[in-house]
Amino acid sequence: MSLSNNKPSLYTSFSPALLNLYDISNSVVVIIDVLRATSTIATALFNGAKEIIPVDSVDECIRIGKQMNAITAGERDGKVAEGLQYGNSPFEYPESFIAGKTLVLTTTNGTKLLHMALAKGANEIITGAFANIDAVCDYLVKTGKPVLLACAAWKDRINIEDTLFAGAVINKIKNHFDINCDGSKIAACLLNEAENDLYGFMKTNQATHFQRLTNFGLEKDIKHCLTNNTAPVLPIYQQGKLVRLNNNI
Amino acid sequence: MSLSNNKPSLYTSFSPALLNLYDISNSVVVIIDVLRATSTIATALFNGAKEIIPVDSVDECIRIGKQMNAITAGERDGKVAEGLQYGNSPFEYPESFIAGKTLVLTTTNGTKLLHMALAKGANEIITGAFANIDAVCDYLVKTGKPVLLACAAWKDRINIEDTLFAGAVINKIKNHFDINCDGSKIAACLLNEAENDLYGFMKTNQATHFQRLTNFGLEKDIKHCLTNNTAPVLPIYQQGKLVRLNNNI
Repeated sequence: MSLSNNKPSLYTSFSPALLNLYDISNSVVVIIDVLRATSTIATALFNGAKEIIPVDSVDECIRIGKQMNAITAGERDGKVAEGLQYGNSPFEYPESFIAGKTLVLTTTNGTKLLHMALAKGANEIITGAFANIDAVCDYLVKTGKPVLLACAAWKDRINIEDTLFAGAVINKIKNHFDINCDGSKIAACLLNEAENDLYGFMKTNQATHFQRLTNFGLEKDIKHCLTNNTAPVLPIYQQGKLVRLNNNI
Repeated sequence: MSLSNNKPSLYTSFSPALLNLYDISNSVVVIIDVLRATSTIATALFNGAKEIIPVDSVDECIRIGKQMNAITAGERDGKVAEGLQYGNSPFEYPESFIAGKTLVLTTTNGTKLLHMALAKGANEIITGAFANIDAVCDYLVKTGKPVLLACAAWKDRINIEDTLFAGAVINKIKNHFDINCDGSKIAACLLNEAENDLYGFMKTNQATHFQRLTNFGLEKDIKHCLTNNTAPVLPIYQQGKLVRLNNNI
């Protein structure tokens, strides 16, 4: 109903269960799983990982890991999944460990959503988190394609941290897009309430995943994952792998 | 993960597509369709309607309307649906017209969601809107059952006005409930940003349904539907009908 203009559209999907409402055949889909999959993906690639293979089951993670002699990593319900070598914390992937290596990764929400977007025929898939927010925003503005910000949420339930990240992206790039999407407006408003202190906002509101990770002693992870541009790279999905765009390490 | 307490739970579902994430077998489900189904339901019952029969198709609306010699009403995409007598505006149902009558109603989102909640075995179903917000809050606190605030949204896409109403309810009754639900926290934050001027907030953000209704010249409806307690009754679903609780007109 809004007057049309020449800007590409931007929509926000708050949950994988809402992904099918959006036509993404011409869109860049940004997979958002701030705590912690897409923060860890950015960090590992920034620290020199050759590639990350996102898979949607622990069994497949083990199988592909063996086949490629790669590192297997992932979590279920916030903990290292049984049978895998490493977890889903950005601190597990310093340059000294990950440089040049292939990581096979499976997580509760983020990798599942990526495969859903793939199955639905997304034109392009990238991953976003505060760790690489400026790289994501720069890319979205530059490509000029329609955008879907796709929150991984928690087992399909909306979460605060992914919504905050969507809001942060929107507030940075909104002038370049036609945003006729109430979800995007809600995300931007949430960010306005929180942006002075994201960690404090998560704590004050007792965000569900804040509680889960805090119960595992992972406050350090939460703080790190809410910090801007600690891993300024753009992970892009190409031929089954997330790689660093313009990989010039 | 939160410490348990003796308060009942409260969750918010932002879209009918998320309803199945919640066990509602012991819950009061509040159907929320601010623009305009649940505003109109409250208004019609406040103005003396005998009962409202929510149905999910235009055909069924016509069939039941004939059978009961009742008023048929409803909308599709914001306009009076073809074949029905009346629309979905609270202004169509003054006391002089509706008192003592039966209304058969079908709408794009609200009545559909009500039937979903019914099919899913909700313990109790009521409807809420700013028009009857205090009646809804009083009832929820008094019954002491778990609560699901269920937004009707727009064709499964999250909308601002239903989220605002969920936030308004939460801000009024949060001390009586255990709210371990990020969606509820997001709704409450949105309300904080908007509560000084709900209409202005909808306009500034160009909420999608604000645009739709404004294009039909329905600003008056929007303003009315964003006003508290214009129709202070509690519509409750009993034996296929929405009736006024403690119907003592």
